Amino acid sequence: MSSAPTVVAVCGSVREESTTRTALEYVLRAAADAGAETELLDLGEYDLPVYDPDADVQGDEEAVKRIVREADSIALGTPVYHGSYSGALKNFHDYCGWDEYEDTTVGLLATAGGGSYGSTLDHLRITVRGVHGWVLPHQVGIRGASSEFEDDPDAPDGRRFVDPDLEERVEKLGRMLVEYAYITPDVTTSRAAADDD
Amino acid sequence: MSSAPTVVAVCGSVREESTTRTALEYVLRAAADAGAETELLDLGEYDLPVYDPDADVQGDEEAVKRIVREADSIALGTPVYHGSYSGALKNFHDYCGWDEYEDTTVGLLATAGGGSYGSTLDHLRITVRGVHGWVLPHQVGIRGASSEFEDDPDAPDGRRFVDPDLEERVEKLGRMLVEYAYITPDVTTSRAAADDD
Amino acid sequence: MSSAPTVVAVCGSVREESTTRTALEYVLRAAADAGAETELLDLGEYDLPVYDPDADVQGDEEAVKRIVREADSIALGTPVYHGSYSGALKNFHDYCGWDEYEDTTVGLLATAGGGSYGSTLDHLRITVRGVHGWVLPHQVGIRGASSEFEDDPDAPDGRRFVDPDLEERVEKLGRMLVEYAYITPDVTTSRAAADDD
Amino acid sequence: MSSAPTVVAVCGSVREESTTRTALEYVLRAAADAGAETELLDLGEYDLPVYDPDADVQGDEEAVKRIVREADSIALGTPVYHGSYSGALKNFHDYCGWDEYEDTTVGLLATAGGGSYGSTLDHLRITVRGVHGWVLPHQVGIRGASSEFEDDPDAPDGRRFVDPDLEERVEKLGRMLVEYAYITPDVTTSRAAADDD
Repeated sequence: MSSAPTVVAVCGSVREESTTRTALEYVLRAAADAGAETELLDLGEYDLPVYDPDADVQGDEEAVKRIVREADSIALGTPVYHGSYSGALKNFHDYCGWDEYEDTTVGLLATAGGGSYGSTLDHLRITVRGVHGWVLPHQVGIRGASSEFEDDPDAPDGRRFVDPDLEERVEKLGRMLVEYAYITPDVTTSRAAADDD
Repeated sequence: MSSAPTVVAVCGSVREESTTRTALEYVLRAAADAGAETELLDLGEYDLPVYDPDADVQGDEEAVKRIVREADSIALGTPVYHGSYSGALKNFHDYCGWDEYEDTTVGLLATAGGGSYGSTLDHLRITVRGVHGWVLPHQVGIRGASSEFEDDPDAPDGRRFVDPDLEERVEKLGRMLVEYAYITPDVTTSRAAADDD
Repeated sequence: MSSAPTVVAVCGSVREESTTRTALEYVLRAAADAGAETELLDLGEYDLPVYDPDADVQGDEEAVKRIVREADSIALGTPVYHGSYSGALKNFHDYCGWDEYEDTTVGLLATAGGGSYGSTLDHLRITVRGVHGWVLPHQVGIRGASSEFEDDPDAPDGRRFVDPDLEERVEKLGRMLVEYAYITPDVTTSRAAADDD
Repeated sequence: MSSAPTVVAVCGSVREESTTRTALEYVLRAAADAGAETELLDLGEYDLPVYDPDADVQGDEEAVKRIVREADSIALGTPVYHGSYSGALKNFHDYCGWDEYEDTTVGLLATAGGGSYGSTLDHLRITVRGVHGWVLPHQVGIRGASSEFEDDPDAPDGRRFVDPDLEERVEKLGRMLVEYAYITPDVTTSRAAADDD
């Protein structure tokens, strides 16, 4: 545990200009500042056909799964499409399983064009539980995402946050992915208990 | 309203042998028996790349959207992947919007390899609400789906249900998609009310 | 169906000054304007002890269930407590069942002190489905509810909406509870179908 | 962290004979075997009127909140009522807040009379997140709960499990509440990171 944890951010939007990806770059910067090795997994740059359980290996499946498996913490970011996560993100998620998510800490972020992101974050939380990832209680939803950023060539992904409170919430997600990268049984406690018996 | 309603079933699995598709064939047969024109929209047979809001038209997008738009009722069927709907189904759903779902009645069906389908049906219900479809209260979840069917060359999709109660629940979904195909404001009531004012 | 529908609004807050109740009064006013008989079921005025399935009859159980059973449409309004509906509303709901909700149209409204009401509306939608109520696609969430109203002695519950768009969304809920008070199978269609066989 | 953690189980049913309570007794026994101090918080034995944010102190509020605040881990158990948690459990939960749940590990258990417990566990998970509790990925749902137990005077709560696999799942919940009672930031990692800067 003395080594730096690896934090991977998965961007569930394939748009050229994605507020989801910009926000995730802030998550990763905060994680790096807290000592992590970081990587952006931009789904637009990988070939992941619609998941077919019957197929042997599809597209970049192996590469993507290895990245997730080797991560200590994962940030899942998605745009809100019809009140839930994007098909792109779920399709990625369908490729991964218990092997990929075991002992992995997961942070959630959703960006909404309009006003509501609650269902999206809930659906993410539930489907990550389905593969037994550890989802952080802290999560980030961004309403009216396109107006929450201003161009700034020096900022991550070329855009800065308009609202510093929101930026702080996003950065907190990055820090917590580092701080809670290694959630493990408190073995001493159980063993001490066993000795008492 | 005198014409037969059109009921379309969307299969969210792209597997060759899909219990989701088999169950949907029973839904469609029951709908046809109740007087509907029916069609299976098997996502495995359409080219729907990962949805990109920036793209003009992608693959078979236009054809798929027209089918949904012209349907009076839609059955959405999905396998349970990690406690939620398949990426394939959500990707299809991302292409559709209010235009496609307006005044459309929707019935939900989920097939689980293991035991739990509750979250999946809930996520479907919420995302269909996001485009203002009318989701029937009656819904169908199938646990341990692979052992719920037996080969039968004369049955829909070549398989019959082992459990007649489950078959009845599936057929009820088909019937209700016909019976409630035209959910409309009870204009007489409102107009009468207006007259009273 | 020629008679005026009955629309009942259930207030899931027991506070003296409740924004949930105020919003529901607007729902009921809009329903009355559209021709309905209306009634507010203010849970603070009824004795409903914690629901015990073993008990014969508890407190005002019978009165409350009769009101729900006789309603054509129900508006369920709740404050957001810890990201979900209030215990008060769920306790009321626990008393009701299929008999109460059969063929009943349900509209949902949630008021949040802070920013997020999505999970609350979702949980309501799912639990009403559990008793087979027909939940309208249109729903209303109110963020920062305490600052959305201004005192106005002539307004419903003594308060007017600050934002006319939000007021319109609330009134639309009332109108739709009238317009869709009688969701019934389109019998003609099925019968015609049967004749064809 | 050298002391034994405290694990509290909250029973969301007020029935005399509750399968929820029986299952929770197994959770607590497993937690005790793993070295914890344990306590059952049986809501039927406390006076918790419907929560009113305007009231100063209601019934046994102070006692109940102190128990939750002092616990390291909490097991929340609920019967499935209308596809969600009981009003009794949510009413208890409404009294608690961030102070009570901060740094608390939470395990979820639901018992269904019929077949589906998925929505109930999801709603619990989301509302506990609302107060920032750490919810374990492992959770337990019990279908057809009344037939899952047999009388046995020597067993916890006088009943033994029929299915040993289910019993093991329940006991695993108790063990994990002990093993993960102290989820804390991996301070060394962050500090090392800070030193690097």
